[in-house]
Amino acid sequence: MDDLSFRTDLAQQLRVDSVRASDAAGSGHPTSSMSAADLLAALLDGHLRLDFGKPDDPRNDHLIFSKGHASPLYYSVLKAAGAIDDEELLTFRKFGSRLEGHPTPRVPWTDVATGSLGQGLPIGVGVALAARDLDRLRNRVWVLCGDSEMTEGSVWEALEHAGHAGLDNLVALVDVNRLGQTGETMHGWDLEVYSARFHAAGWRTLLVDGHEPEQIETAMQEATTPDGRPVVILAATKKGKGVAAVEDEPGKHGKPLPDAAEAIEELGGARDLRVEVAKPTEDAVPHTFSATGGAAPEFELGSEVATRKAYGQALTALGGRRGDVVALDGEVSNSTFSEVFREAHPERYFEMYIAEQQMLATAVGMQVRGWTPFASTFAAFLSRAYDFVRMAAVSRATLNLMGSHAGVAIGEDGPSQMGLEDLAEFRAVHGSTVLYPSDANQTVRLVELMAEQEGISYLRTSRGALPVLYAPDDADFRIGGSRTLREGDDITLIGAGVTLHEALRAAEQLSVAGIQARVIDLYSIKPVDVDAVRGAAVETQAIITAEDHWPEGGLGEAVLSALAGSGIATPVRQLAVREMPGSGSPAQLLHQAGIDAEAIAGAARKVLGR
Amino acid sequence: MDDLSFRTDLAQQLRVDSVRASDAAGSGHPTSSMSAADLLAALLDGHLRLDFGKPDDPRNDHLIFSKGHASPLYYSVLKAAGAIDDEELLTFRKFGSRLEGHPTPRVPWTDVATGSLGQGLPIGVGVALAARDLDRLRNRVWVLCGDSEMTEGSVWEALEHAGHAGLDNLVALVDVNRLGQTGETMHGWDLEVYSARFHAAGWRTLLVDGHEPEQIETAMQEATTPDGRPVVILAATKKGKGVAAVEDEPGKHGKPLPDAAEAIEELGGARDLRVEVAKPTEDAVPHTFSATGGAAPEFELGSEVATRKAYGQALTALGGRRGDVVALDGEVSNSTFSEVFREAHPERYFEMYIAEQQMLATAVGMQVRGWTPFASTFAAFLSRAYDFVRMAAVSRATLNLMGSHAGVAIGEDGPSQMGLEDLAEFRAVHGSTVLYPSDANQTVRLVELMAEQEGISYLRTSRGALPVLYAPDDADFRIGGSRTLREGDDITLIGAGVTLHEALRAAEQLSVAGIQARVIDLYSIKPVDVDAVRGAAVETQAIITAEDHWPEGGLGEAVLSALAGSGIATPVRQLAVREMPGSGSPAQLLHQAGIDAEAIAGAARKVLGR
Repeated sequence: MDDLSFRTDLAQQLRVDSVRASDAAGSGHPTSSMSAADLLAALLDGHLRLDFGKPDDPRNDHLIFSKGHASPLYYSVLKAAGAIDDEELLTFRKFGSRLEGHPTPRVPWTDVATGSLGQGLPIGVGVALAARDLDRLRNRVWVLCGDSEMTEGSVWEALEHAGHAGLDNLVALVDVNRLGQTGETMHGWDLEVYSARFHAAGWRTLLVDGHEPEQIETAMQEATTPDGRPVVILAATKKGKGVAAVEDEPGKHGKPLPDAAEAIEELGGARDLRVEVAKPTEDAVPHTFSATGGAAPEFELGSEVATRKAYGQALTALGGRRGDVVALDGEVSNSTFSEVFREAHPERYFEMYIAEQQMLATAVGMQVRGWTPFASTFAAFLSRAYDFVRMAAVSRATLNLMGSHAGVAIGEDGPSQMGLEDLAEFRAVHGSTVLYPSDANQTVRLVELMAEQEGISYLRTSRGALPVLYAPDDADFRIGGSRTLREGDDITLIGAGVTLHEALRAAEQLSVAGIQARVIDLYSIKPVDVDAVRGAAVETQAIITAEDHWPEGGLGEAVLSALAGSGIATPVRQLAVREMPGSGSPAQLLHQAGIDAEAIAGAARKVLGR
Repeated sequence: MDDLSFRTDLAQQLRVDSVRASDAAGSGHPTSSMSAADLLAALLDGHLRLDFGKPDDPRNDHLIFSKGHASPLYYSVLKAAGAIDDEELLTFRKFGSRLEGHPTPRVPWTDVATGSLGQGLPIGVGVALAARDLDRLRNRVWVLCGDSEMTEGSVWEALEHAGHAGLDNLVALVDVNRLGQTGETMHGWDLEVYSARFHAAGWRTLLVDGHEPEQIETAMQEATTPDGRPVVILAATKKGKGVAAVEDEPGKHGKPLPDAAEAIEELGGARDLRVEVAKPTEDAVPHTFSATGGAAPEFELGSEVATRKAYGQALTALGGRRGDVVALDGEVSNSTFSEVFREAHPERYFEMYIAEQQMLATAVGMQVRGWTPFASTFAAFLSRAYDFVRMAAVSRATLNLMGSHAGVAIGEDGPSQMGLEDLAEFRAVHGSTVLYPSDANQTVRLVELMAEQEGISYLRTSRGALPVLYAPDDADFRIGGSRTLREGDDITLIGAGVTLHEALRAAEQLSVAGIQARVIDLYSIKPVDVDAVRGAAVETQAIITAEDHWPEGGLGEAVLSALAGSGIATPVRQLAVREMPGSGSPAQLLHQAGIDAEAIAGAARKVLGR
């Protein structure tokens, strides 16, 4: 261990640079950076295998700062590794700089955005699973965690999954600096408490003084000797280590040091050490799954098929044609029909059990390594992972989500199982695509389109069987499109999923009364087909939207947004679920909610005064 | 233990009734009910203290079915206790019946809706905290959990918090029946694995065969002998216990038994046993906190105050006047200013650490016992608990949430910390109220109004200091209201929070160009002031909305919804955040997003062609 004095110097440089960057920015988290500097110095100088010149090398180790607020440390590490220069370091947090307040993938060595605590470790689990079980490489995933974030349930999901999967290519470094944002953590420096929890989840635990280079080195050597279990190094550290004015002092979170010049001097002054980080040496290329072929399923016109079932079959066929497609499910694969994929492609199916946050995190981690994940559960339960979806957008992630059991049309199970806010949720995600098919063949095509789409794509499917409306060879669907299923000049009825079928029935009823209704299948909720909506508004006297969703943020408001600014005065009447539903048959609940054919026809007659 | 044969009979009745109810419904989860029948029989007959005739008696024990899909068992328990009759039991899952597919508080003995797994135990922690630390009673909270739901991170948050708080009035019964919906759980019948995890979190763990009445009785006796720790009874059980066709068989989840008549016979036939559940005997009334007084804070016109800061002060004053008000925070109380409340009312402040799901669950649990919770964290991080918010609406809960650090206006911290989807999230919650103040005195008044409002109320606050616009004695704010701050007949500018201030500046700029802009403070986003919006649409030539939020589901779409159906053709131009922001100063980011005064004025000139 003759090189450890270099690490001590390097750690001081990381501290000094953290102080300098935060001081230049006038904000930031230097004290949270200083506690972990010794850990990172050891990692850089001897254990990380990462070619900073080739950030896309699949053999690289991954380094995820789950405590994203320690971004000054992260950027100081990048400088020490020669990935960025000192001038750029001092652009930290400035407008236009890629060195944002919390790391994002605008910096190429950054896999995912962090800053919402408790996400880095679950995503690290996903990256490690992908590396080991899909790419089949032996690179390692290092995740720096804070102690405060250990209280997030998502961290415990990660612990459980990593332990269950035996991910010995995953190393968590927990910077137990005792102090959270406002006060002491639950457990202070009691490493044994943390150790018991990791251990109970099947991890190997190594306890160190996080400012003792020899202890750290010993632990790092042990951590990099795989034994079938994920490893955590629990390091007792001091926040603000090295500067008396802030070291282990409360009230010093998230602000520059009071006197940066003095602090830098106390830390031994500015240095310009450079670490030659080891490059990956593994002579291997990532595994790929060969395409075995798989014709898209076809459903007979007029037959009744649930769109969730079509999803499962479509995804399975797509997986046959594309080896990069993987499926994840939250222990409801017989409801979402991802079980069809599991049976066909067991090596590319990942059971995430009832842990939606971990499911999302795994999907994010897999797309980091270039895979194309489709994750499914009930639409209602995706709300459990909404913060992960939000952050996935900041991560510029490309992934596909499927939420089944949308709306009151599920029937007897009641409101806890009904996705009634999912369209609002997913529309309000930056760069998202929101699709809602009304028939099985359309579902097949939309699944294919999703797989080609960048960003976060969401597919809403229905529990009940719906009549097949489109021929199997009808490929005239596109993201941002719609279909006019019935022409009419009196009024326009817009629906999707179950309400499209109700709208078609309503149009039949209206036609008996001499009212010619246009019916639009608005299967692309975001982006929405502005031309079709505006055309209908110009050419008919009123628009009725019907959606199996709360009135806010869904199909109706997407239509209103398409019309806003057009100066078209055509009234829009939004039919949606406005009272809390209970149990009942789908027909009873659609009727009670006022979104069935009778309600749509009634609204049409009322608005036309006929 | 001479009464245990009665319990065996009672358990069989609970099984038979679960089978009967599910059979009558044609759906439901009888097998998940049958595994836990012996546990519930023991609980009812000897350990539960609950006066079913007085569901509102504050001294009652609480019984929460975290595995809400075991509703057939729950309703069978209610029948055995005499709370409902057999006729009602057989209305299970039928339209109009209060016996929904998953329990809701439509049934008066049900504290909260369950059915989204992993919520009952965290909410039970909240109920237990309220009972012990606020009401100061010695009643007990019993929570029946499934083993599948133990994978939810929210459960681990509950474990940690209950252990940390030493909640020995909380007993979890975990029905380890080994089989999830689609297959075996991670840990099967390995009770030791579960035990190690509970134990690591500070719980007392008792392991039993869940079909052995003597073992259960021994454990129940131990569980009801408090020792300062929460208790879990980990019971190895068999799904579908008692009926060979389904017992411990995969593929039998969530469906009626194949042959109900045969199953009932196998279970010994229908019975009509009635348990006299013990009533609470504690001679005590709930503690109340006396009002100590507290004048609402007042802020000087023109001074600059952050609305988050006004929130903290307003809540503290309200807490002085109302002893039922409690505050919770997710370890950011110095950012949300709930720390002011903590200092003034330490007995009514609950530190929830960085565990937003547990924070929401605790708030839900506290309102179950009649308290008025206000829970706060960054707006962005409330997305972590969105499923709990969704379910709180199904629970008919009344609670108040505050999300700070809204939008790009937070500046340097970057997008991970920016609430940009919160308005969409909270608008799409049934029965919710969404408020967004733009000044400190208005914030004070809105906090007071929230405390009077039923349902889920959300207050969005800003990080930066904003000029005080309203006089301290200006009480002319109401839920569903708005304020016109500047009259004008050419165009209407609508904003809230930071964009209201930008709109006011834009109106000044426009006035120089001879354009008279009306400026509306739309502080009530839901319900929205339809009259004011429509009036503006009729009286001016165009509407510009500006919001520090994604374009979907927020202020702009609330305005569009207010206009929909009115037949008013006035164009609406929505200004919102359309590109992923980075770091920068608030002014730089508002400008980049196109929601600052310059952008608003520019949009106004463009739409008017001037």
